[in-house]
Amino acid sequence: MQTVDMILSGGTLITMDDEYRVIADGAIAIAGEKIAALGPRADILAQYSAQEVIDCQGHYVLPGLINAHTHVPMTLLRGLADDLRLDVWLMGYVMPVEREFVSPQFCRLGTLLACAEMIRSGVTSFCDMYYFEAEIAKATAEVGLRAVLCETVLKFQAPDAETYEDSLALAEAFIQEWQPHPLITPTVGPHAPYSNTQETLRRCRELALKYDRPLMIHIAETEREVEDNMRDYGKTVVPWVKDTGLFDVRGVIAAHCVHVDEHEMRIMAKYGVSVAHCPSANLKLASGIAPVAQMLELGVNVAIGTDGPASNNDLDMFEEMRLAALLAKVRPIDPTAVAARQALTMATRNGAKALRLDAVTGSLEVGKLADVIVVDTRGSHNSPHFDFNPNAVYSQLVYATKSSDVRHTICHGKLLMRDRQLLTVDEDAVKAEAERYAAEVGRFLRVREGDPLSKLVAVSLGVERAESFEIQIKARLDNPDRVEELLSHSDVEVIRAVHYRQYDTYFVFTEPEPSWVRYREDDKINAKGEVESVRMRLTYTIREQERRLEDVILLSHSRYIAPATQPLRFYREYFQAPIERSLQKERRRWRLLYKGVLFFLNVDRLIEPAADGMFIEVKSRTWSLTDAQNKAYYVREMLDILGIDMAEAVSEGYLEMTQPS
Amino acid sequence: MQTVDMILSGGTLITMDDEYRVIADGAIAIAGEKIAALGPRADILAQYSAQEVIDCQGHYVLPGLINAHTHVPMTLLRGLADDLRLDVWLMGYVMPVEREFVSPQFCRLGTLLACAEMIRSGVTSFCDMYYFEAEIAKATAEVGLRAVLCETVLKFQAPDAETYEDSLALAEAFIQEWQPHPLITPTVGPHAPYSNTQETLRRCRELALKYDRPLMIHIAETEREVEDNMRDYGKTVVPWVKDTGLFDVRGVIAAHCVHVDEHEMRIMAKYGVSVAHCPSANLKLASGIAPVAQMLELGVNVAIGTDGPASNNDLDMFEEMRLAALLAKVRPIDPTAVAARQALTMATRNGAKALRLDAVTGSLEVGKLADVIVVDTRGSHNSPHFDFNPNAVYSQLVYATKSSDVRHTICHGKLLMRDRQLLTVDEDAVKAEAERYAAEVGRFLRVREGDPLSKLVAVSLGVERAESFEIQIKARLDNPDRVEELLSHSDVEVIRAVHYRQYDTYFVFTEPEPSWVRYREDDKINAKGEVESVRMRLTYTIREQERRLEDVILLSHSRYIAPATQPLRFYREYFQAPIERSLQKERRRWRLLYKGVLFFLNVDRLIEPAADGMFIEVKSRTWSLTDAQNKAYYVREMLDILGIDMAEAVSEGYLEMTQPS
Repeated sequence: MQTVDMILSGGTLITMDDEYRVIADGAIAIAGEKIAALGPRADILAQYSAQEVIDCQGHYVLPGLINAHTHVPMTLLRGLADDLRLDVWLMGYVMPVEREFVSPQFCRLGTLLACAEMIRSGVTSFCDMYYFEAEIAKATAEVGLRAVLCETVLKFQAPDAETYEDSLALAEAFIQEWQPHPLITPTVGPHAPYSNTQETLRRCRELALKYDRPLMIHIAETEREVEDNMRDYGKTVVPWVKDTGLFDVRGVIAAHCVHVDEHEMRIMAKYGVSVAHCPSANLKLASGIAPVAQMLELGVNVAIGTDGPASNNDLDMFEEMRLAALLAKVRPIDPTAVAARQALTMATRNGAKALRLDAVTGSLEVGKLADVIVVDTRGSHNSPHFDFNPNAVYSQLVYATKSSDVRHTICHGKLLMRDRQLLTVDEDAVKAEAERYAAEVGRFLRVREGDPLSKLVAVSLGVERAESFEIQIKARLDNPDRVEELLSHSDVEVIRAVHYRQYDTYFVFTEPEPSWVRYREDDKINAKGEVESVRMRLTYTIREQERRLEDVILLSHSRYIAPATQPLRFYREYFQAPIERSLQKERRRWRLLYKGVLFFLNVDRLIEPAADGMFIEVKSRTWSLTDAQNKAYYVREMLDILGIDMAEAVSEGYLEMTQPS
Repeated sequence: MQTVDMILSGGTLITMDDEYRVIADGAIAIAGEKIAALGPRADILAQYSAQEVIDCQGHYVLPGLINAHTHVPMTLLRGLADDLRLDVWLMGYVMPVEREFVSPQFCRLGTLLACAEMIRSGVTSFCDMYYFEAEIAKATAEVGLRAVLCETVLKFQAPDAETYEDSLALAEAFIQEWQPHPLITPTVGPHAPYSNTQETLRRCRELALKYDRPLMIHIAETEREVEDNMRDYGKTVVPWVKDTGLFDVRGVIAAHCVHVDEHEMRIMAKYGVSVAHCPSANLKLASGIAPVAQMLELGVNVAIGTDGPASNNDLDMFEEMRLAALLAKVRPIDPTAVAARQALTMATRNGAKALRLDAVTGSLEVGKLADVIVVDTRGSHNSPHFDFNPNAVYSQLVYATKSSDVRHTICHGKLLMRDRQLLTVDEDAVKAEAERYAAEVGRFLRVREGDPLSKLVAVSLGVERAESFEIQIKARLDNPDRVEELLSHSDVEVIRAVHYRQYDTYFVFTEPEPSWVRYREDDKINAKGEVESVRMRLTYTIREQERRLEDVILLSHSRYIAPATQPLRFYREYFQAPIERSLQKERRRWRLLYKGVLFFLNVDRLIEPAADGMFIEVKSRTWSLTDAQNKAYYVREMLDILGIDMAEAVSEGYLEMTQPS
């Protein structure tokens, strides 16, 4: 009789070994961190004894699940913003909040919360990509889970690095600090091809090769990524990445791969690139459905990941397994695709292979590390059981079992959860601290959400303040011929003339004060009537004061101008303004001196909403009331030359003029 | 101070009322079966007292979920057979098992198990369609859930009715027996357009109108259903059903509607037909993804159902809500489609409307029935909470909450689950009894699975036994011209000549004895070389004995013949034979008398697998050894006329001859 540390006694062993052996009424003997023996219960109990014998009757005993792609600290951003398009979600919420809040403490806390959730749902190994990975490593090792941790490399600034040089240095320091460690594989994670350069990818490759480490990267998550890559490099994403030499690294984990073609799958199969399929996140962000059945058929090692909990919104590998099996059946239509056993294989064996941990985990085998979960299958939702069909155990696990059915979780031979009680993390303290963070993030966002300017600043690369006092008059122009008269007048010197077609969209706010964000597309038209250049700008305007001088209006504006780097749709969904208005006009604009004083003259034809005739605007910046009075006098003179009676002047801007009644 | 029966005190009330009010730190006073008051906790506790005060702090309190489409007794078939095509699953497993096992006791037990599962996952109302609905009603009422129960009407025999006349009579008796009842709405459920006739649909319509009841029907679940309807009636399914007058019924619930076009959606919106969307089952059986966002946009009332647990495999409305929200985002691609609040609306308000119960349930409102669930949101997977965004509570519920987070379930003012303990059903006894049923079903299927003949019988409309003794010889035919010589020989009288093109697929079994199922397509070719008719047959053959008489082979076969009503693919997936072989040949066949004795002469050209030359077969049925010996002698004579040496005779059939080496 041999003494071991722990015996899992009874239950159905779902080994996931090469023969997919299922042992009814089995037992596992665990010695130290390893599986010493497994087999029929009677055999094991005849040979082994232990202080710690856990009764597993009525349960399934299987290898711990492997979450092949996640961003664990993002648990702290769970439910922050949902049902948004990827760009609005990422650039409008996640990135601004990350810039503000991500710190070593944030990463430690988020990791502890994630580990608690993963242990509860039967995960024993995961692959992470985030910032401050050394903190994530510390927290993960303390809790006792196994992980491949990838320090993010971006071509631009990151929460933990000013430059990519710093990120790469941080990654290398992290690798050196944590090697060797029984639970943690420290490595580097170039975020994605589009967020890296060929140089940074090459540098990541060198790092992974130097230390012989796997490496994670997001690939072909969205259709747009593929289109952009085609436009910029004339090829799809996978061949482009291959050309950087990145696939020389043994153990590349490509997350998502929603939009890859057969040629790309063959490349991945050939180079041993694993795919981390993330079905919930791909649906939630509407990226699409990855062609999993075809990838598997072509020999690609496909594992399953939850992605970060900000885009899922949980870390539930049982949900992901089920969804992986279900979704594979509708693309293409084939209900026999990715059967239950295959889905469980993806979440165990394939995950281990992806993480280069298949020698030590991913199946229940003598000599492997004891990463084991015990799942209660006696719930009503799991009743009854059919045993005539060898696939029934897999069906049960994939189609009916819930993560809350996981009863005990063992990693590296150590009990991390017993009877649903976590043993290595103070869950209540972690949750309380997480609520405190959420409250702070909430305050930050509440302020921002209430103020269009803060929202603009949050998503713009540079917002310029342009406070201005301006005199302005606008009038219907009944005789366009008179414009020539003014321009050729002896008191006028034309400095510059331009012709635009302008498409304006106003997002109008009433709170906290009347203001609007204008998205303007300026199409500059050349002499031949062709579009010569296109420029998009955002202008945020708070109209503060308005007074009349000689019937000319003196305005005081607070104005903020920023380049519009996103499509109009982005800003619409991001600002969620109570009122939206569109205007389109042809504008001829002259910069001129009248009696030596600078004015702008705009001659506009309003196209949408349709308005009869044309309008003229005369404007000038001003600095003092005396200056404004002088300019107002000049404006009246110019209107006289144009034959316009001041009575015809309109005080409103186009926005007010065209207000629906 | 008013005394009520129960107060739910604290927690966030998610009312789902017309204004979607969310009341933090709220309370609900329940008097009898109704909600007497709800509002901020302080207000309610100031006005009401009760013996039973349930502390709901840290929980969400919301209306019970409504499962708009299910077949509750099928819990007993959960996990019976998965990852199969709809037809194989339904006709190969579910229907044969139902024919054998469905009884009043089966329905009662399955209902109790389903109710246990639904109470645990926060469902308080459901809409069922199955057999023996009166038993289902009894069990549901005992447990205390609310249900609309639809007695199934099929154009053919059902487990509880010999004819559709019987089904209709059963439905009417059921309606009369159970009206009025505070929990149960008894009604009729025409299974589907394709499984009914216009007459049965009209009769169901009359029944529903007579008693003013809602009614459930499956509509457009698969693409094939639509194609068949187009072929048979020249229109899609919804307009065809509309033409029967069925939509005159107030409260038609159309389950699935995966394949409906805009015109059909407009018809459903106009007639107030509700859709019961079943996302898991539609994926699992690869029916497709229903166009939910478009239906909602066009004003169709879309509710959510789990479908039966044999095709899901559970009754988890939290999973279905989540999937409804996620899937709507990929058809078409739009991550803002079916936001979390919309998904919860579908599972509560829309469900109530579909079941014509919106006056009494589906939201938390004073005067409505107290159908309330209390959900724990303090789990790690639900942490932290963001309250700056009014949609965060819905996100939390739809994207992160699990059915196992439901803590208390109240229906009709009565606690059915408290602290996850079921109070009205003996769950352990039900589960134990369910396992006994499963074991019986398992025995039935184990026997059948081991025996191709039983499998054939299970899926065929009529299997004819044709035990036969046959003499047979086959030889290479080097001089095809000699066939004419034989046919015009003075001893020969040709009775009938036919020309076939035959496509044979053999499913070959080695267990329990050597046998095969042959799927044969016989294309009959007319004089002009055109295909005149096509016939598909299955033949199951056990070759029992073989001996030689005068170099001619005497065979003894057990043969079973059945029309092949399903496509070849069906039988392939259903039989899952270890070996499959295909043959294609041109066969000219003569029925002739030789010296007054009946023989069959086949002249075959093997096309696939390719074989040089032609073959001749001479066969005759026989009954006794003496008869066989005489016939063997005649066969030798005929071969002489054909100029064939017996040495050239081959003893094998084509199957063995063309065996891959």
